[in-house]
Amino acid sequence: MSAGPEGGSAGRPSDDHVSPEEVDRLVQRLDEEAEKSGYHLNPDRRFTRGLVEGMLVNERRYGYWACPCRLASGVRKDDLDIICPCDYRDPDLSDYGTCYCGLYVSQDVKDGKKKAGRIPERRPPDDARALASASASAPSGRMDAPPPSEAGSADTVPAAAPALPDLSALNKYPLWRCRVCGYLCSRGQPPEVCPICRAKKERFERLL
Amino acid sequence: MSAGPEGGSAGRPSDDHVSPEEVDRLVQRLDEEAEKSGYHLNPDRRFTRGLVEGMLVNERRYGYWACPCRLASGVRKDDLDIICPCDYRDPDLSDYGTCYCGLYVSQDVKDGKKKAGRIPERRPPDDARALASASASAPSGRMDAPPPSEAGSADTVPAAAPALPDLSALNKYPLWRCRVCGYLCSRGQPPEVCPICRAKKERFERLL
Amino acid sequence: MSAGPEGGSAGRPSDDHVSPEEVDRLVQRLDEEAEKSGYHLNPDRRFTRGLVEGMLVNERRYGYWACPCRLASGVRKDDLDIICPCDYRDPDLSDYGTCYCGLYVSQDVKDGKKKAGRIPERRPPDDARALASASASAPSGRMDAPPPSEAGSADTVPAAAPALPDLSALNKYPLWRCRVCGYLCSRGQPPEVCPICRAKKERFERLL
Repeated sequence: MSAGPEGGSAGRPSDDHVSPEEVDRLVQRLDEEAEKSGYHLNPDRRFTRGLVEGMLVNERRYGYWACPCRLASGVRKDDLDIICPCDYRDPDLSDYGTCYCGLYVSQDVKDGKKKAGRIPERRPPDDARALASASASAPSGRMDAPPPSEAGSADTVPAAAPALPDLSALNKYPLWRCRVCGYLCSRGQPPEVCPICRAKKERFERLL
Repeated sequence: MSAGPEGGSAGRPSDDHVSPEEVDRLVQRLDEEAEKSGYHLNPDRRFTRGLVEGMLVNERRYGYWACPCRLASGVRKDDLDIICPCDYRDPDLSDYGTCYCGLYVSQDVKDGKKKAGRIPERRPPDDARALASASASAPSGRMDAPPPSEAGSADTVPAAAPALPDLSALNKYPLWRCRVCGYLCSRGQPPEVCPICRAKKERFERLL
Repeated sequence: MSAGPEGGSAGRPSDDHVSPEEVDRLVQRLDEEAEKSGYHLNPDRRFTRGLVEGMLVNERRYGYWACPCRLASGVRKDDLDIICPCDYRDPDLSDYGTCYCGLYVSQDVKDGKKKAGRIPERRPPDDARALASASASAPSGRMDAPPPSEAGSADTVPAAAPALPDLSALNKYPLWRCRVCGYLCSRGQPPEVCPICRAKKERFERLL
């Protein structure tokens, strides 16, 4: 963060200053990281630069990349779910082809095959989040789906324990764990090398 | 897909046309993606180019990268298991050091330390696949192994519930979930950053 | 491994010889692989080169990258846990900001925000490892933590089966498995492409 004194954001306090070069660097870094993992930045670079500048301004103000399209509380632990990439990006990409801001888009939107429209706010309101946090349950705003019909053959669950989750589908394939980094995969044999930490096959242990 | 009118595949209909440049681009892209995740293209580039050309021809015909060494039905949902990389690549790499086509090879085969031979077809026949699909069970063609001797100490499963899968090995290590992308790992503490989406440690929640 | 006759390690037997170029190549490769997955080599390059040279010498002697800061047995299966990256790197990075050797460091240490000090040896002594190996239990040296308070609401476990692990938290989110590479993730819908093998969303199956 070598924000110099030059630059054109005259309306903001000087310690919020973000240089164009800094924005460019972060756009490029986010772009590379996104593509590696199957994500995509919005190809409208002018738009994208505006959002990334907002993230950098928020970093100056709060110390973290608070979502540039939402109101940050300034208290890191209360804003964890909206530090970019936010907890809602991936379900929004699945449902709408874009995240709430439009910083990340789906392949189809990137390729111009689909248009990203405006999307509803998936983040629960403050009081719902406070409740969820208190009971430590999953955020209520996430997208979910009914259990898969192919999982859960009912006869593997004894009648006496109806409340037990049916996890028998976990036994469909061996479950392997990388002893070095903890990567988990579900397949016949472990991979040749761990895709995360490059440890060799022999470093995997079978859990299930 | 900017397939021009030039090129040397005169025997095929013109809309199947695939230019050498297009083949080169895809070979390079697949090579880079493979190496990042611990896979390897066959180092015999002439052979590899032929296979990749076949994939591109299939993309023209069917709209997807049907395996160039198998007969595609042309119906995407029936061919899902043989869209490259196919469902059988990884078990074949484990067992034979190469996929069915020879497009992907193991490190040892790549390095010339082992020779890849011809391998049997692991894909179940049409009728078996149809049955498996109907009952939504795992494909019968995959490689498997008996449950690990180190997992499943029998005394943790009550005698009254013999049908319950023994999942106690899942409790050997904490299980962490990235709240942003859903990455799972099994280790003492979450990683410094999520290797998939780069979210920081604080964005992980403990599931087990 | 094209170790030439030149170089400055005159005190070692000639077949242990490691050239500076070889060290440089491996440092660069490890650095790139580390950064991709959220790890970091020690930025003190002279120090790092010394460790990497030690790994290469060990590769000459034993055939594998035995940790340069520990005494290798020379028997691969007995040294699996100390082949670099060792089984202890990640917990040591979490606890101390560095691995035992100092080859890998945390972001804060890399950035000079924290200092890495000397750390205790997490590897269990020989006899403890032999016992652990015999009973095939988890290594006793790993870092662990009590079960999460948010998981395991006790009322989902029937009173009659106290020994059963409570895995109900696994049901908080759908669990998806990539049919191609076995990648697992826990989220509302599968990702657009598998971050490991680039297979498309349609290749995921829901396990839970």
